[in-house]
Amino acid sequence: MDLLIEPLSAAAFAPFGQVIEVSDMARHFTINAGFAERYHDLARVDVASAGGRPQISIFRARPRSLPMALILLERHPLGSQAFMPLSQLPYLVVVAPPADASRPDLARLRCFAAGPGQGVNYAAGTWHHPLLALQAECDFLVVDRGGAASDHNCDEFALDGLDLWLAVGPNTPESFSSQSVA
Amino acid sequence: MDLLIEPLSAAAFAPFGQVIEVSDMARHFTINAGFAERYHDLARVDVASAGGRPQISIFRARPRSLPMALILLERHPLGSQAFMPLSQLPYLVVVAPPADASRPDLARLRCFAAGPGQGVNYAAGTWHHPLLALQAECDFLVVDRGGAASDHNCDEFALDGLDLWLAVGPNTPESFSSQSVA
Repeated sequence: MDLLIEPLSAAAFAPFGQVIEVSDMARHFTINAGFAERYHDLARVDVASAGGRPQISIFRARPRSLPMALILLERHPLGSQAFMPLSQLPYLVVVAPPADASRPDLARLRCFAAGPGQGVNYAAGTWHHPLLALQAECDFLVVDRGGAASDHNCDEFALDGLDLWLAVGPNTPESFSSQSVA
Repeated sequence: MDLLIEPLSAAAFAPFGQVIEVSDMARHFTINAGFAERYHDLARVDVASAGGRPQISIFRARPRSLPMALILLERHPLGSQAFMPLSQLPYLVVVAPPADASRPDLARLRCFAAGPGQGVNYAAGTWHHPLLALQAECDFLVVDRGGAASDHNCDEFALDGLDLWLAVGPNTPESFSSQSVA
């Protein structure tokens, strides 16, 4: 089965978390005597469960090649996880709502193409594919939950054998297709 | 008086907070079946004082021109504040240690040129100049403290009249001088 790539937008992503981006939809105001505009409080950082704390890391991602088959989804039940690209390179975001307490609803799997300047914050417990960089190695700033090594904060759900492929579709952004697909 | 621009490094910045960057000095490990390297927990996010919470914003900064005179320092007594550039453009970081409980020690003011891929996290209470973007408008991801509007989380210290100028010096990175100074 093909999973068609669609544009990332705040509205489409709302069931899964927040899009982190400069937008007039966000509350914003001028600071620093006019030298900066603050786009304020763009993501719900939800990391305090079970004694967690916020942490900042950098993920350096190796690129994938399209077409690709999806292998697994994961979720972090105890905390949100934000990814902000530190480059202008495109990347993909694959998410699914829950089917029940332990499984994603694969019939409602979505794949979003993030544009330049778009990050995402996965709400705690959201099923998502690991980072899908394309084209070249690129870095992401990550804000997620730090806790005890014994905390149970990662579930995985295998997709191999399901023959799920990422594919360009009618709504795939044209800029994405021309840049990213061999 | 001229304040000479020097390179940003983790060691030089240690009295003021952390440099957020990919470095073999950081703990790092491979994740996502080999498709990413996690440079782990690079900044001390310290935002819980007085009921605070972590928040993620984007600052869109207008560029300054060099030479420039410094006008003021500020500090956030209740929380750390991290800035990660979302472009490869250079920017400057001006900080000072405290002289006493209410004033920065201007004799020990420092100005660091951040290179591509370098962010900073100001420790709670660190005196710093507002964002100093150069060359062009650029965006920064900011992780700082959200709290009540009535919280006292910003002090300012005026520098105008002190005739403090940012200037290229013998340790200013050559790449910075050639790119950034008219």
